[in-house]
Amino acid sequence: MIVVHHLNNSRSQRVLWLLEELDIEYEIKYYERDEKTMLAPDSLRQVHPLGKSPVITDGDLTLAESGAIIEYLVERYGNGRLVPPPNTSERLRYTYWLHYAEGSAMPPLLLNLILNRFGLGDSQAMSAFVAPQIKLHYDYIEGELRKSIWFVGSYLTAADIQMSFPLELLAMLPQEILSRPSIGEFLERIHTRKAYLRALERGGKYDFANSIP
Amino acid sequence: MIVVHHLNNSRSQRVLWLLEELDIEYEIKYYERDEKTMLAPDSLRQVHPLGKSPVITDGDLTLAESGAIIEYLVERYGNGRLVPPPNTSERLRYTYWLHYAEGSAMPPLLLNLILNRFGLGDSQAMSAFVAPQIKLHYDYIEGELRKSIWFVGSYLTAADIQMSFPLELLAMLPQEILSRPSIGEFLERIHTRKAYLRALERGGKYDFANSIP
Repeated sequence: MIVVHHLNNSRSQRVLWLLEELDIEYEIKYYERDEKTMLAPDSLRQVHPLGKSPVITDGDLTLAESGAIIEYLVERYGNGRLVPPPNTSERLRYTYWLHYAEGSAMPPLLLNLILNRFGLGDSQAMSAFVAPQIKLHYDYIEGELRKSIWFVGSYLTAADIQMSFPLELLAMLPQEILSRPSIGEFLERIHTRKAYLRALERGGKYDFANSIP
Repeated sequence: MIVVHHLNNSRSQRVLWLLEELDIEYEIKYYERDEKTMLAPDSLRQVHPLGKSPVITDGDLTLAESGAIIEYLVERYGNGRLVPPPNTSERLRYTYWLHYAEGSAMPPLLLNLILNRFGLGDSQAMSAFVAPQIKLHYDYIEGELRKSIWFVGSYLTAADIQMSFPLELLAMLPQEILSRPSIGEFLERIHTRKAYLRALERGGKYDFANSIP
């Protein structure tokens, strides 16, 4: 049985969503962030030495890292669903977005979060580096979503699920999301999917599934 | 012909190394960082809208994002080299490290770089978040490299090439690298490989191929 070690308000929400899309049975073990530090509890370190979310266990296997978990679940249990066929340009775009989500889209948002959390929101680091990086990456994503409604093309893939988390974080910044309507429409589109809603119900507290103002 | 759009002192150095390991012909177009901002020049935006490195072109294809470029080159030109066979536990570890390098290993080093560049090296953001995150991730990597000399096991894979960049950045911080001898040995090992040295010669200025003190 697949067990998702699930931290509230975290990247593991998208693993639940993927499992619901694939209609795979799974079990959730719930972990709560420390309300002061916002970090995962130490109990997650008993599952994986990094003590981060998401982690899944599947029999003897313990696997961390969103991109790797998604690739594993789709390949092992997907029967070709949510992934374009091998050796196509769609498959290459799929691989690209799978890496881009954490490799490029997340870092400027993480910097924004950390600088604000520690009272450095007015620093030059923010104005000279973080804000321009957010603009660069999310203007680019907005442009890509103007070309096709899903990241790879006309159908949902696991790359959309992987990309959902940075976009949901972006939507916490009203000025950023209001100026990018295609990203807003993408979020509205995923937030009405039955599998997404089932994952939300099972996962519990998740503050990022907001409707766009 | 594969063209690597190569920025000095950047992630694209590992694409050159990969191509040398695979013994594939390629051409380099050179780009230089702005000496003040350390950012890539605008000319890279003419190749890809993000204007970042690495980007490769291969005929009509333009591809960004290190992990995606590595997956593309290995699959298209590798003939099975530098990648474990499908449906093995080695292949899963390979996929894991390919994602981990940019998704988890790089963000704390990026935060460290940006905070220091903007005079925030003594901030609470550094002591309460960045330093503990560096400790967590690089102690973990040190532990993994104590178990096997390469990331997947006993032979070099493209996951080692992907992981080389964060480890080379870590080695710029003497106290971090001196306390982690297995990471130091990993770097010594890659820095004596013929393919690595050929890539260094063709790539030009690269400040991170240092020998460990």
